Amino acid sequence: MTTALVLLSGGLDSTTCAAIAREAHDHIIGVSFVYGQKHDKEVWAARAVAEYYNMPHEIIQLPNVFKGSGSTLIDPGLPNPTCSYDELEGVSPTYVPFRNGILTSYAAAVALTRGADFIYFGAHAEDGENWAYPDCTPEFIGSMAAAIYVGTYHKVRLLTPLQWMAKRDVVGTGKDLNAPYWLTWSCYNGGEVACGVCPTCRSRREAFTYWNLKDPVCYADEVSNDE
Amino acid sequence: MTTALVLLSGGLDSTTCAAIAREAHDHIIGVSFVYGQKHDKEVWAARAVAEYYNMPHEIIQLPNVFKGSGSTLIDPGLPNPTCSYDELEGVSPTYVPFRNGILTSYAAAVALTRGADFIYFGAHAEDGENWAYPDCTPEFIGSMAAAIYVGTYHKVRLLTPLQWMAKRDVVGTGKDLNAPYWLTWSCYNGGEVACGVCPTCRSRREAFTYWNLKDPVCYADEVSNDE
Repeated sequence: MTTALVLLSGGLDSTTCAAIAREAHDHIIGVSFVYGQKHDKEVWAARAVAEYYNMPHEIIQLPNVFKGSGSTLIDPGLPNPTCSYDELEGVSPTYVPFRNGILTSYAAAVALTRGADFIYFGAHAEDGENWAYPDCTPEFIGSMAAAIYVGTYHKVRLLTPLQWMAKRDVVGTGKDLNAPYWLTWSCYNGGEVACGVCPTCRSRREAFTYWNLKDPVCYADEVSNDE
Repeated sequence: MTTALVLLSGGLDSTTCAAIAREAHDHIIGVSFVYGQKHDKEVWAARAVAEYYNMPHEIIQLPNVFKGSGSTLIDPGLPNPTCSYDELEGVSPTYVPFRNGILTSYAAAVALTRGADFIYFGAHAEDGENWAYPDCTPEFIGSMAAAIYVGTYHKVRLLTPLQWMAKRDVVGTGKDLNAPYWLTWSCYNGGEVACGVCPTCRSRREAFTYWNLKDPVCYADEVSNDE
């Protein structure tokens, strides 16, 4: 009997993690965070994914921690980039200071309290490339996994099954597991429809195109102007 | 020009860290947490220490994260132990699930936002002994330091100058630096006066006795019954 806690952001990666965890464990639970992100509608996507998999789901409120951090994911005065991750250099303007350290630490605390043996964290290979997200690099993940394993006296382990996958491989994996991608939200701008041009929209669209899959999300450039 | 962020709990260890950091850096700032601890009066001691050193001081509210964790530091129905740490076996009942992972992660986020280069975290050698506090062990500290250094793209480093000191050595160090121990609070029970018998009161009293110093805190067994 094992229990796994899945960090659910409402996007493709964490939903794929939920699909993987569902196969591997007797019980799975979900945790999501409201941390001041502009696209906090992603949390409702996370809730829908949790309901789909019949997972108990906890939403943790951290509304102020990243105020003033200068991340375009948070600051209303700073627009998100409109290019692909490949065109960004170094740390992405969408990086949120040590967010994944805080989120995985919270997850470790919740896992210990709820008796979960594993945490699933959906960082994938492209997240850490070129330091776009320093808190998704292999070095961060390995260090944090060790900190969690020791700091919970060997009760909780951090698992990152997407760590060496490109986005297209994540979607290929989720497709084979029938992950409920129609419930997900990725766009950093959190509008009515997905912007289609922020780095995460671009990455998502390319992955669906690669597999000749229709992306169930509606994009701004697909909406007729005279609707 | 360097800036250091000091995790201030209001106790001896973190106050000694503040004294060390004051000597070593141009600017120091303090961060404290209200995380549901019974002895949250320690945060006011932390504020007094911050004022003494003229440090900007941020108090972060995490009131719910450890609810239901079964820690005697948190749960009103579970009394704190009344013996010394030496008499406890294995993980202390006062351990709070992965608390120091969460606190140092928050510190990393605040440090990056405020431009601090270093975090001072006051874990001392006895904290991690016999796994009393798994999130104070050398292994935890080393892993967490690596996670923070990488996850902040080499901007923030975690420093633990008390890591190899017994409590008496901490007090000896602070004494030489004139650390304002008269402002501190240690007792886990957070009463009017310190209980004198919880593990941290015992450890504190022994350290002051070792140096033939009068402990400025008032203990329950020093208060006359007919006062």
